[in-house]
Amino acid sequence: MPETKIYLSEKEMPKQWYNIAADLPTPMQPPLHPGTRQPIGPDDLTPLFPMELIMQEVSQERFIDIPEPVMEALSIWRPSPMIRAHRLEKFLGTPAKIYFKYEGVSPTGSHKPNTAIPQAYYNKREGVKRLATETGAGQWGSSLAFASAIFGLECKVYMVRISFDQKPYRKALMETFGASIVASPSTDTEFGKMYSEKNPDSPGSLGIAISEAVEDAVGREDTKYALGSVLNHVLLHQTIIGQEAMKQMDIVNDYPDVVIGCVGGGSNFAGIAFPFLRDKIAGKEIKFLATEPASCPTLTKGEFRYDFGDTAMMTPLVPMHTLGHNFVPPAIHAGGLRYHGGAPLISHLVNTGLIEAEAYSQLDVFKSALDFTRTEGIIPAPESSHAIHGAVVEALRAKEEGKEKTILFNLSGHGYFDMAAYTNYLSGNLIDHAMTDEEVSENLKSLEGLPMQFTG
Amino acid sequence: MPETKIYLSEKEMPKQWYNIAADLPTPMQPPLHPGTRQPIGPDDLTPLFPMELIMQEVSQERFIDIPEPVMEALSIWRPSPMIRAHRLEKFLGTPAKIYFKYEGVSPTGSHKPNTAIPQAYYNKREGVKRLATETGAGQWGSSLAFASAIFGLECKVYMVRISFDQKPYRKALMETFGASIVASPSTDTEFGKMYSEKNPDSPGSLGIAISEAVEDAVGREDTKYALGSVLNHVLLHQTIIGQEAMKQMDIVNDYPDVVIGCVGGGSNFAGIAFPFLRDKIAGKEIKFLATEPASCPTLTKGEFRYDFGDTAMMTPLVPMHTLGHNFVPPAIHAGGLRYHGGAPLISHLVNTGLIEAEAYSQLDVFKSALDFTRTEGIIPAPESSHAIHGAVVEALRAKEEGKEKTILFNLSGHGYFDMAAYTNYLSGNLIDHAMTDEEVSENLKSLEGLPMQFTG
Repeated sequence: MPETKIYLSEKEMPKQWYNIAADLPTPMQPPLHPGTRQPIGPDDLTPLFPMELIMQEVSQERFIDIPEPVMEALSIWRPSPMIRAHRLEKFLGTPAKIYFKYEGVSPTGSHKPNTAIPQAYYNKREGVKRLATETGAGQWGSSLAFASAIFGLECKVYMVRISFDQKPYRKALMETFGASIVASPSTDTEFGKMYSEKNPDSPGSLGIAISEAVEDAVGREDTKYALGSVLNHVLLHQTIIGQEAMKQMDIVNDYPDVVIGCVGGGSNFAGIAFPFLRDKIAGKEIKFLATEPASCPTLTKGEFRYDFGDTAMMTPLVPMHTLGHNFVPPAIHAGGLRYHGGAPLISHLVNTGLIEAEAYSQLDVFKSALDFTRTEGIIPAPESSHAIHGAVVEALRAKEEGKEKTILFNLSGHGYFDMAAYTNYLSGNLIDHAMTDEEVSENLKSLEGLPMQFTG
Repeated sequence: MPETKIYLSEKEMPKQWYNIAADLPTPMQPPLHPGTRQPIGPDDLTPLFPMELIMQEVSQERFIDIPEPVMEALSIWRPSPMIRAHRLEKFLGTPAKIYFKYEGVSPTGSHKPNTAIPQAYYNKREGVKRLATETGAGQWGSSLAFASAIFGLECKVYMVRISFDQKPYRKALMETFGASIVASPSTDTEFGKMYSEKNPDSPGSLGIAISEAVEDAVGREDTKYALGSVLNHVLLHQTIIGQEAMKQMDIVNDYPDVVIGCVGGGSNFAGIAFPFLRDKIAGKEIKFLATEPASCPTLTKGEFRYDFGDTAMMTPLVPMHTLGHNFVPPAIHAGGLRYHGGAPLISHLVNTGLIEAEAYSQLDVFKSALDFTRTEGIIPAPESSHAIHGAVVEALRAKEEGKEKTILFNLSGHGYFDMAAYTNYLSGNLIDHAMTDEEVSENLKSLEGLPMQFTG
């Protein structure tokens, strides 16, 4: 019986993050100040982030040391296991070997604490007392709540109202870690009050919640803001995933032909992919597949251009694949990954052709999630199930072609808090809605007047 | 930085279960036929269980081989990690070392699949097509649903109605694994129909659900019954936990002075304790602590005598500590462990003085659960939190006495499906209710006429 779970000891944890900025074949466009439309400098970001994170955001160093207290906190659950999906392979009848890295073992059940921990640590070290953030379904909010508990910070979470109402367990999870939660739009911020007055029945959105959390942080001396995806330093912190996976691949004497991750903002995909991408940039042949929902097709249908990160247009303008900062996915969409933009780094790598992107319908995704659950025994998060479906598609292609192939995907989280989505799927209440080109164009009209690229 | 998580490879999984029946210092009372009140033989049990499990139920062999397909299925998540609770120790300021075995890594988040897998396997091997069982909160039902998916059996779960209504996510989990669920009392059985007519608003109970599942199994040729606790063979299957823990203790060159587990029926406690108990029976000094809720104080206040396992009085009479088969805990009780009796093996070991039992109030238990969550990053099941609280009590005693001490407890499951209980605790809606001696006596009146012991 071969080992199915490949563990590393805590001593084998990577001691540095890998910064792909040092190896990019072509340079990225800079983020722009929303007012001046000139590249922003570190000082523009100090109301939001501690200096160490700002420096990481623009760093060109290939490797950045992970501080000892961060290593110690990460070791509560890391290294995460890499698992060979023998039973899924057998079920699919594929000659491909399927491995997955399992990030659901973290305290909040996803990869998000990988960056919540260092973000809370650097804030604490620089004298910050309180963090403000937004959360949609609650993965990020609960992770920052956990990290705040570990380092003794207060934590305020603006939770998208519809999730606040529909996902009381996520809210309870955050409270159990000691955070304060408010439904967004709220009356705790000026933007929230203004928005609520105009739209008293608003279900909220991630863009609105970001605007509220940013306003909160900017308005209080003791408070900074924390973001769970999209930014360079967030993606950087996730590279511990791929570095561990490389060591685990060494243990089984294998190497992936395909690396797959789902993309909302892009941080879990970056985490598994970037360390392997370094090898591809150096000449190795590897396919990188970013998977997303057809009802929120940021990378496959979004336009690459400057856009705001939030609805209130308070954040810097960043160059990314975007569906427009007013984008709201259809209510029937159950699979998460709802953010209107893709991380600038991911968008850039898609543009360079180093990463491929595919969009899947939710019924296909839930079908693969169920096959995975009944063979591998793990209920995956609907988000992560987009990566599973990508692996299934690749494995069935290998079967068709009669090719051996090694597939690695990131199972970014478990679905124990998402059982309502499974109930909807099992009872036949989900339908597919793929966003059309026309809908995308209509949506992008809100970006008129914004620069397409920075010309200096 | 010392390792906090102690892993074993799959090759190091125990290959046999440990059967404590071979080492008992005094013999147990036999189970009795409910009609004849004579000891039951294997034939009496064949409508309910496959022969292999009946043989295990009465076996006197010290070690029983684990079949290869069972090993393979268990290896989906086993061996489970043993974790040193450094952060909790520091928080408590105790000189004690606290280790916990973490069974929440299983597909359904508890220790229950350890026995669901072999039970499904033996049934499959003996030609059974379908399993019927009951479940309260859903831990056992979801585990049997998972095991049935692995071995290709149909699975019917009678779920206590109040849980069915209040815990839709547990129901969804069972459905995701492919099981059929019905609220109990149901109209699918004669007993259920009869009971519902008399008590149209009944919230159900575990005793009622057991009666329904037993009737279902007895009435169908293709179906057997499966029980998730109490019986000898169930406790046997859980001993893989303690055997792994012994190996893990060897790795860190340590040995427990105290072994702690929570007790409902008693299977997770048996799992961690029995392999170490063998050493105690052989002369080693170890304290064994079984912890239970003060509102359901089976071992600390229940009487040791013959009682039925179910409300309809269909099961054999078993010798156990019991609160009476009509016992229903107060509605305010949030911590699980609601069963009216303790496993005969556990009850017997309490009688011999080898095991000590303590009952805790739920507010104390949730307080310790929260301290654990905020230091160790795992949200424990309310049930398992009774073991955490036991460890906290022992660790604080060690601090008071200035003694070094090694504490091992079983964290039998995570609490991701129990967030409603945490919400109730955090919002101050839980109160304590310790069962009084008078309430116990009143309850035991229902047992008048049942034998106190078997005199042959």
